[in-house]
Amino acid sequence: MNPAAADDKESLTPRARAILYWMDLAGVAVFASSGALAAMQAGLDLFGVLVLAAITAIGGGTLRDLLLGRHPIFWMTDTRYIKVIGLTALLTALAASRWSQALASGHVALVLADTLGLALFALCGAEIAEEAGKPRLVVVLLGTITASGGGVLRDLLTGQVPLLLRRDIYASAAIGGIAAYLLLRALGLPRQIAFFSGMLVVAALRLASLQLGWQLPAPQLQ
Amino acid sequence: MNPAAADDKESLTPRARAILYWMDLAGVAVFASSGALAAMQAGLDLFGVLVLAAITAIGGGTLRDLLLGRHPIFWMTDTRYIKVIGLTALLTALAASRWSQALASGHVALVLADTLGLALFALCGAEIAEEAGKPRLVVVLLGTITASGGGVLRDLLTGQVPLLLRRDIYASAAIGGIAAYLLLRALGLPRQIAFFSGMLVVAALRLASLQLGWQLPAPQLQ
Amino acid sequence: MNPAAADDKESLTPRARAILYWMDLAGVAVFASSGALAAMQAGLDLFGVLVLAAITAIGGGTLRDLLLGRHPIFWMTDTRYIKVIGLTALLTALAASRWSQALASGHVALVLADTLGLALFALCGAEIAEEAGKPRLVVVLLGTITASGGGVLRDLLTGQVPLLLRRDIYASAAIGGIAAYLLLRALGLPRQIAFFSGMLVVAALRLASLQLGWQLPAPQLQ
Repeated sequence: MNPAAADDKESLTPRARAILYWMDLAGVAVFASSGALAAMQAGLDLFGVLVLAAITAIGGGTLRDLLLGRHPIFWMTDTRYIKVIGLTALLTALAASRWSQALASGHVALVLADTLGLALFALCGAEIAEEAGKPRLVVVLLGTITASGGGVLRDLLTGQVPLLLRRDIYASAAIGGIAAYLLLRALGLPRQIAFFSGMLVVAALRLASLQLGWQLPAPQLQ
Repeated sequence: MNPAAADDKESLTPRARAILYWMDLAGVAVFASSGALAAMQAGLDLFGVLVLAAITAIGGGTLRDLLLGRHPIFWMTDTRYIKVIGLTALLTALAASRWSQALASGHVALVLADTLGLALFALCGAEIAEEAGKPRLVVVLLGTITASGGGVLRDLLTGQVPLLLRRDIYASAAIGGIAAYLLLRALGLPRQIAFFSGMLVVAALRLASLQLGWQLPAPQLQ
Repeated sequence: MNPAAADDKESLTPRARAILYWMDLAGVAVFASSGALAAMQAGLDLFGVLVLAAITAIGGGTLRDLLLGRHPIFWMTDTRYIKVIGLTALLTALAASRWSQALASGHVALVLADTLGLALFALCGAEIAEEAGKPRLVVVLLGTITASGGGVLRDLLTGQVPLLLRRDIYASAAIGGIAAYLLLRALGLPRQIAFFSGMLVVAALRLASLQLGWQLPAPQLQ
């Protein structure tokens, strides 16, 4: 993506990039599906379902690109993102209006897919900020925004105080994974290994928190 | 606006551009008025009335310019937009606090003006995205964002789940008109004719849906 | 910040810039603290407290930079902003969960600090827009957005209709101070004197309105 990256011996191999691209589209599909379901729960019409799906799926990456001044924004040149979102949203609306019982029992699959999306978006966003030469603290922030910005916008548009600000180890799992990535890079590990280790840390933190009921403390006003 | 467009034999004539410019200001005035009324309904003070008017009127175009990385943003060089908004918002507040009965009976005029604004903003936004060389799908998206983004921001700021995500053929009318424009262009029609035909399609879809009570389906969770 | 400014005989002296920089960090700290308190009131968790603190403190300046196409955005190169926010948010959460009684009695200090932040952000934002060569009306708008955008985003994220759209002389005080600055500049006063006079006007308007209970009128629908 960043031309400078092509010259970087340390950058991801073409094969790793190709894998990431397809995982990226998979992540977009999962997030689009979550947006479509949220739209149905809020009673939106078909247009609202499509908008929520898009905003959930590419809102975080769009915020990242805007903040970095990185144009064209990723979905403006590769329209596959938009096509995947449209298709997923329609399929989700169709499936959920018929078999939401079955979907609920497929809950585990959805959670796993969402966790994959979270891990991938966090590390991709962090890497893009890193390639743009940003300081580490900013790399962590932009990775977290990439991973969780779409969900925040989804909740805002459906009139909710964003879930991930209220409870759950979600964005914090992204922060943990990006921090692990930066640490491994600082220790001299190849980017590729650090990248996938970072993803693993995000996923592990997220799934462990769900399994064990971890929560961040909510500081109380005395 | 886009320098490249000046060389484009296909581009709109200066006369058409001048007409569009004045229609644009008229559209801004109508949307500003709708924002001011929404602010009064939400009990905002005079500053809130001005802010809502501005965000409703130029929020969509601002989002479009930000997403395209198109600087300076249109209202930053031509301050006529801001002046029109300020004046319209004050006049609306004055009129609505005296004769809202009369305004309600002028409802038909407001709806027609809003429809004109919707049609114009959709096609103008689409044309700007087209001149920036974006793929067709992105042209449709950016035209729709230009036309409806301001209304979404207005609803968010007054604590509503955006109306156009819930019901009504509104953004969908914009999509229909832009699609018609692109189709006519692909069939080889001059840009000018395609442009005004597209506007006509938006207006026709919008007014027909109001008259006939068309709604998009709202997919239900089973 | 703007390289052009260095050549400008009229620009602020290095000493004034240094003072402004430290006042800027102080303003960021105060706004971060207000965001953290709002997050606690809304029952957010520790991550939400940090996010709200950051958005309140640097949301306005970020909006300004995005609208101006001014990259890198100010907090992306100087990470001191983020560090100050993180530290202030944690200290606020700690203090407020222990001594919110005492904090409430420290209310006057908080109001004074918030007023300083408002005045400073308004004038700094206006100056940045001026250096970017924008028309005066846009200078006023961007200064006001810098000063009040973060508070609007904070209220949106906690599910409130933004306070400053509803009542209070807040953004209006910013507008008044920026207008005074532009007037003094037009009368030929040195930038430095106009700048600090503008800040004084903001602070005076804000504190007088609090003391005397001034409100903007809220136009009523008849």
